[in-house]
Amino acid sequence: MPSPEPLPDRLIVPVVELALAEDLGRLGDITSAACLDPRARMSCAFVARTAGVLSGLDCARLAMAALDPDIHYDAKLSDGSPIAPGEVLAVVEGRARTILAAERVALNLVSRLSGVATLTARYVAAVAQSRARIIDTRKTTPGLRALEKYAVRCGGGANHRFGLDDAILIKDNHVAACGGVGEAVRRARAQAGHMVKIEVEVDNLTQLEEALSVGPDIIMLDNFSLSDMRNAVARVAGRAVVEASGGVSLDTVVAIAATGVDLISVGALTHGAASLDIGLDAA
Amino acid sequence: MPSPEPLPDRLIVPVVELALAEDLGRLGDITSAACLDPRARMSCAFVARTAGVLSGLDCARLAMAALDPDIHYDAKLSDGSPIAPGEVLAVVEGRARTILAAERVALNLVSRLSGVATLTARYVAAVAQSRARIIDTRKTTPGLRALEKYAVRCGGGANHRFGLDDAILIKDNHVAACGGVGEAVRRARAQAGHMVKIEVEVDNLTQLEEALSVGPDIIMLDNFSLSDMRNAVARVAGRAVVEASGGVSLDTVVAIAATGVDLISVGALTHGAASLDIGLDAA
Amino acid sequence: MPSPEPLPDRLIVPVVELALAEDLGRLGDITSAACLDPRARMSCAFVARTAGVLSGLDCARLAMAALDPDIHYDAKLSDGSPIAPGEVLAVVEGRARTILAAERVALNLVSRLSGVATLTARYVAAVAQSRARIIDTRKTTPGLRALEKYAVRCGGGANHRFGLDDAILIKDNHVAACGGVGEAVRRARAQAGHMVKIEVEVDNLTQLEEALSVGPDIIMLDNFSLSDMRNAVARVAGRAVVEASGGVSLDTVVAIAATGVDLISVGALTHGAASLDIGLDAA
Amino acid sequence: MPSPEPLPDRLIVPVVELALAEDLGRLGDITSAACLDPRARMSCAFVARTAGVLSGLDCARLAMAALDPDIHYDAKLSDGSPIAPGEVLAVVEGRARTILAAERVALNLVSRLSGVATLTARYVAAVAQSRARIIDTRKTTPGLRALEKYAVRCGGGANHRFGLDDAILIKDNHVAACGGVGEAVRRARAQAGHMVKIEVEVDNLTQLEEALSVGPDIIMLDNFSLSDMRNAVARVAGRAVVEASGGVSLDTVVAIAATGVDLISVGALTHGAASLDIGLDAA
Amino acid sequence: MPSPEPLPDRLIVPVVELALAEDLGRLGDITSAACLDPRARMSCAFVARTAGVLSGLDCARLAMAALDPDIHYDAKLSDGSPIAPGEVLAVVEGRARTILAAERVALNLVSRLSGVATLTARYVAAVAQSRARIIDTRKTTPGLRALEKYAVRCGGGANHRFGLDDAILIKDNHVAACGGVGEAVRRARAQAGHMVKIEVEVDNLTQLEEALSVGPDIIMLDNFSLSDMRNAVARVAGRAVVEASGGVSLDTVVAIAATGVDLISVGALTHGAASLDIGLDAA
Amino acid sequence: MPSPEPLPDRLIVPVVELALAEDLGRLGDITSAACLDPRARMSCAFVARTAGVLSGLDCARLAMAALDPDIHYDAKLSDGSPIAPGEVLAVVEGRARTILAAERVALNLVSRLSGVATLTARYVAAVAQSRARIIDTRKTTPGLRALEKYAVRCGGGANHRFGLDDAILIKDNHVAACGGVGEAVRRARAQAGHMVKIEVEVDNLTQLEEALSVGPDIIMLDNFSLSDMRNAVARVAGRAVVEASGGVSLDTVVAIAATGVDLISVGALTHGAASLDIGLDAA
Repeated sequence: MPSPEPLPDRLIVPVVELALAEDLGRLGDITSAACLDPRARMSCAFVARTAGVLSGLDCARLAMAALDPDIHYDAKLSDGSPIAPGEVLAVVEGRARTILAAERVALNLVSRLSGVATLTARYVAAVAQSRARIIDTRKTTPGLRALEKYAVRCGGGANHRFGLDDAILIKDNHVAACGGVGEAVRRARAQAGHMVKIEVEVDNLTQLEEALSVGPDIIMLDNFSLSDMRNAVARVAGRAVVEASGGVSLDTVVAIAATGVDLISVGALTHGAASLDIGLDAA
Repeated sequence: MPSPEPLPDRLIVPVVELALAEDLGRLGDITSAACLDPRARMSCAFVARTAGVLSGLDCARLAMAALDPDIHYDAKLSDGSPIAPGEVLAVVEGRARTILAAERVALNLVSRLSGVATLTARYVAAVAQSRARIIDTRKTTPGLRALEKYAVRCGGGANHRFGLDDAILIKDNHVAACGGVGEAVRRARAQAGHMVKIEVEVDNLTQLEEALSVGPDIIMLDNFSLSDMRNAVARVAGRAVVEASGGVSLDTVVAIAATGVDLISVGALTHGAASLDIGLDAA
Repeated sequence: MPSPEPLPDRLIVPVVELALAEDLGRLGDITSAACLDPRARMSCAFVARTAGVLSGLDCARLAMAALDPDIHYDAKLSDGSPIAPGEVLAVVEGRARTILAAERVALNLVSRLSGVATLTARYVAAVAQSRARIIDTRKTTPGLRALEKYAVRCGGGANHRFGLDDAILIKDNHVAACGGVGEAVRRARAQAGHMVKIEVEVDNLTQLEEALSVGPDIIMLDNFSLSDMRNAVARVAGRAVVEASGGVSLDTVVAIAATGVDLISVGALTHGAASLDIGLDAA
Repeated sequence: MPSPEPLPDRLIVPVVELALAEDLGRLGDITSAACLDPRARMSCAFVARTAGVLSGLDCARLAMAALDPDIHYDAKLSDGSPIAPGEVLAVVEGRARTILAAERVALNLVSRLSGVATLTARYVAAVAQSRARIIDTRKTTPGLRALEKYAVRCGGGANHRFGLDDAILIKDNHVAACGGVGEAVRRARAQAGHMVKIEVEVDNLTQLEEALSVGPDIIMLDNFSLSDMRNAVARVAGRAVVEASGGVSLDTVVAIAATGVDLISVGALTHGAASLDIGLDAA
Repeated sequence: MPSPEPLPDRLIVPVVELALAEDLGRLGDITSAACLDPRARMSCAFVARTAGVLSGLDCARLAMAALDPDIHYDAKLSDGSPIAPGEVLAVVEGRARTILAAERVALNLVSRLSGVATLTARYVAAVAQSRARIIDTRKTTPGLRALEKYAVRCGGGANHRFGLDDAILIKDNHVAACGGVGEAVRRARAQAGHMVKIEVEVDNLTQLEEALSVGPDIIMLDNFSLSDMRNAVARVAGRAVVEASGGVSLDTVVAIAATGVDLISVGALTHGAASLDIGLDAA
Repeated sequence: MPSPEPLPDRLIVPVVELALAEDLGRLGDITSAACLDPRARMSCAFVARTAGVLSGLDCARLAMAALDPDIHYDAKLSDGSPIAPGEVLAVVEGRARTILAAERVALNLVSRLSGVATLTARYVAAVAQSRARIIDTRKTTPGLRALEKYAVRCGGGANHRFGLDDAILIKDNHVAACGGVGEAVRRARAQAGHMVKIEVEVDNLTQLEEALSVGPDIIMLDNFSLSDMRNAVARVAGRAVVEASGGVSLDTVVAIAATGVDLISVGALTHGAASLDIGLDAA
């Protein structure tokens, strides 16, 4: 799996700063200030405690650099790499006080993002024999959307729209308000710029036919049975991208992928992922 | 379980604003703008899809109010309440566009915090027959620490220190740098103000004895075996609060509690909790 | 021309606040503080001095409300309306000091956005007999992009992508770096999510053929002659949306539209528009 | 024309950051990320496409540096210089992705400020045979006031007050509220500190006489006829600085200057200037 | 003494917010949360403990309102009023938790600003028989300049320039760099806009003569002896405003005022004022 | 007296930035821009004008660095050092414009913090023969709490709690609301985490006994007579830390310390300290 394009530092720094402010509070690390000589130095390694897929290692670099630009930081792996228990992800060397002050922020971010990447990779591996791609949703942690969607890419998944403003996704409430899938798509097309894609959610095969008649870019099959999904894929016949959504788990995703859908969106990639266990060990 | 003191709105609003900015982007909800009449109204209910413990319902109120102060919001339960599948948590009524624009932000926050409260409550229930309290750690989601620590309280747990600056926690690196547990505690006491508590981590019974000789407020037993824990509790004999830490899971927590420790800290409360499934249903 | 969907207040308020901070400085309006009784009230009307198309009237409301929520504000027209010299756009009544303190900020914003809408409307009117739509570019005033793109919609135009992140636009430098239009589109498609459209710029008919072979959503004809444009439209034959770009002015736009292109992008809509002359007259 | 004192970087950086945030959005430049090798480098030149006066070149430097401090930037001209079509303003060399990501922000700022400087220079040249100085107003683009007033200085003009708080300008509404020019000036003087200048607007020669009796620092002749202006200049006879205001255009400014006024304020310098056409060409 | 124009809320609110954030930290008032019923209400009075001059009472109102808009607040005096020990300044009634949470922020601000006003009033009273006005300097508390300069006005003093950008004050280092007072004033005049006043500091009577020859608006006599001051006032003879500066205390100010200077600047007004003792008493 | 641990730059920089923004305003130092050659350099020394204790010298370094990272800065003393009139605290060398622009911000901060340290040191010296420590309160300047509490440490004092959220301090209003000291402490203990200390204020010996029965960490004797204080110390007999509070001045502090209390809190350390006179002299 190739590494995804790295996220620009400029998108990571505000999250790191927020986390540092939260942890350092109004006085900084009072324990290290009391116990450590200000000139004491240390070398440490970020080490995986369990297996998974790495994501967000730049957060560790930026957390250290935010407190002290003179810390030496050396990444041993790149995001998207599989990691084994005991594997060294990066090493840092510098003032002990700074390293310990930034440690928890660095670990919290790398662990969470690697947790998302690891779970994504499990879904991606599960459907590897199909044409389906695993995609995320907007069910992300507030403030971390750009980072968590990046973690999904690190795990081999792809991203759904980023927010409410960069693509049109017509859902059941919109359809109801418009009086039908067709009218909803027509209204959306009348408003949308030429650079904006339009997806519509359908609840059954009747709505699917109506949707096909107005030509959206993507059709989301919401909570379809496996047989309806197969039927839907056949009817669409390449005229739109087909997304399966709803009730997807590692238990069900293989069968869903086998129906021939193009995309399977999985909320759990971000809202159900536990952090991966990563630690910082003194060398 | 009594409801915890509610978190002041002033601590929640910045998180809600960050999440709204992230989701609304540069144009707002372009789908609803295209498909819904600006005057259309709707009534919706926040509904639990699975059982758990509620936390963070104020986030839903504040997300709606941030977009439109005229939305009617009516909470049906208070944080800390057990919730059953299908149970209505709150109802909202107002402009359809606003409700749909705030929906995902509201759900993401309530779901995540209720996930933390629910997992905490499972740990708390597991040790209910013991004297031990379940406490959290600093392994929280960046930017959400105040909210996640509140969610721990909603689940019946208690909080460890909030950040690096509000209490002293001497860890192995500090001990090593000071040349011993005793010297580390002495240095900490010399620096700390009279309103600051001092906790020290010990790795074995020898360090425990050294710690007891200098009288910290709390002693953390780090990765002790169950028999060493029992031994440690006996030796401390009430002279300090005793915290067990390391390797705690729902499988191990009952036995740990049975050793007589006062506190059991569980990183998984915040870094291992999946979001609780909560939805917004049109009435 | 129907009014466009109004921009959410939440997108306007930061611009208004920035402008107020800039104008009020560290002491506020010291002239009015010296000369006006703090209880004195006044009624004023926002009045057009020249003809044009209205845009951004909400900025006037929000500038007044930012300084004093008790000011009465009554809009007489909605954005997108044609306005005649002497026409009243809105009236305000309240504390004289507040109205005079907010006046310049209100006028600067309404005047600028109405200037953009007015110029856009001239282009739109010029091509009314064709199938072509007038669209904007990213040549907007720093900090005002959302507002200026809204003003374009008020003038009857449509929007190109909002920023570098919400759609893919492959330009000459990208093509050169990839070694060809085809490879550039292939790389873009491999990276882009399913909700992201892909546009590619071509400089000549050879590149156009190459582009058509890889099927982008939109093809931009950069600085094509009119005859090449006609040729290109014929070759595309509906397989992609066609955008004309480069050297567009009110003198040339009619002929460009007559070539049959779908879209004509005009940087001058935002970087060449003078403010419309609007004043605030005491009643 | 000597170059004006450069604006401190600290006043430019927030505008550049705002513009970059607006353009890069939540993901950065996704086209360049897809199409360009992360290590690819390029050399480019900022090149004038039309003649004018340069202003704001530091914005280009700071936009590049904000994304990558390692970009080499070399200015070839200084602000205030006349520029000819095809002239190279500055060259940059560095990572291609960074240069393309910062390009539009850099160009939008330099183009707009050079547009203001260019228009200012035309007014300044028109009155070069007179004693009159061309000055700006508060009709600036929200958020860009410091930069646009700097651009006016680059074009050879001078600045009126910066905001409502740094000088007193008594206008018709203030005069009306005070019951006369004299009382208005008296109230202003009673409140103003010794470092604050006082200007009063008069609408006719009667008010002018009243103004002269109370000795303001500056008198603004608002929409005076040319003959009244000449008359006013004679009556003032150096006892105050005289500013002409209202209805000033390139067609009328020469005659106004010939009346002998000290200052001519021109709102169009900032609200009527089109951006100068400047591009970034790959070397 | 008439009350000064009140400071706009918009200039006070950021200071109040900063102070509240500093005091409430990450959890708010944990003592009141533990000890007080959330519905408990209380009535309190802001009471002077010592005599002085009131300033900044709006800070108390805004601190309370920031935490709870439903608190009833009733001011009994206005800023600039003399206050006696035991006098009630304002009363508040509302939720006890909120009032206690805002108490310290409110008191810290009112006490500090009243301290500045009180000290200013002592200087003003001391020179009441002279023509001299007492003015402040830029020796203010970081972040509080607008408020402290307002407090000086409450005490009957006037303000020097607000910052480095709103007026020109040529000091010894500038004179040295220019090679003389005359050249320094000439350079300043060439750069300054027509709304900017120019003051020059002189160290002796020779420099004074040189200054008079170039006509600055204000001349500052820096550390002059009393006889030199008298001499200087005579030589200036009304051709410029004369400011005395340096070594001013309550012991020396009367004699300085008697020399006939127009202004006496006193750094101690802001850097030497102790807070006035004000408390909040439960009713 | 050993130097206290330096405050992390990250806690100082926001204060310095706020102060610079306040002083530089919208244009920067217009006097230096007009009078000084942009390439002119100067060497200056921060020099004490009166005796005291140094605190906050890093503010000078950071103010200079904020405007120009290339300024050479060399500290001659460290915070906590006694300083004599005429003593050089630090020297700077660099662009004259920058040094003069940052001068006032640097001086205002160092002077204020050194004023706090100096006053603290006088209290500390006064009680040197006793066991009592001098501690501060929350009566700090809004926005400067972290810095002023640091200055207290520089003067040899210690800190009380930092804000309302990091420790529990039960005051008279809380006691009244709970119906007694005992109940108040019990409620606090039930809510507080294990890392939070609990202090209770008592007004008389009866309350003291009640307090002792519930075992708070610290007992504050509020406005006790000296004999009651002695009595209280005897009764507590080491079972809690004892703090004396109320009416403490340099006149009374020695006798208070002689009663045997552990801590004496002095609001005047921060709200009653005048700035120390420090200047910047050209070399």
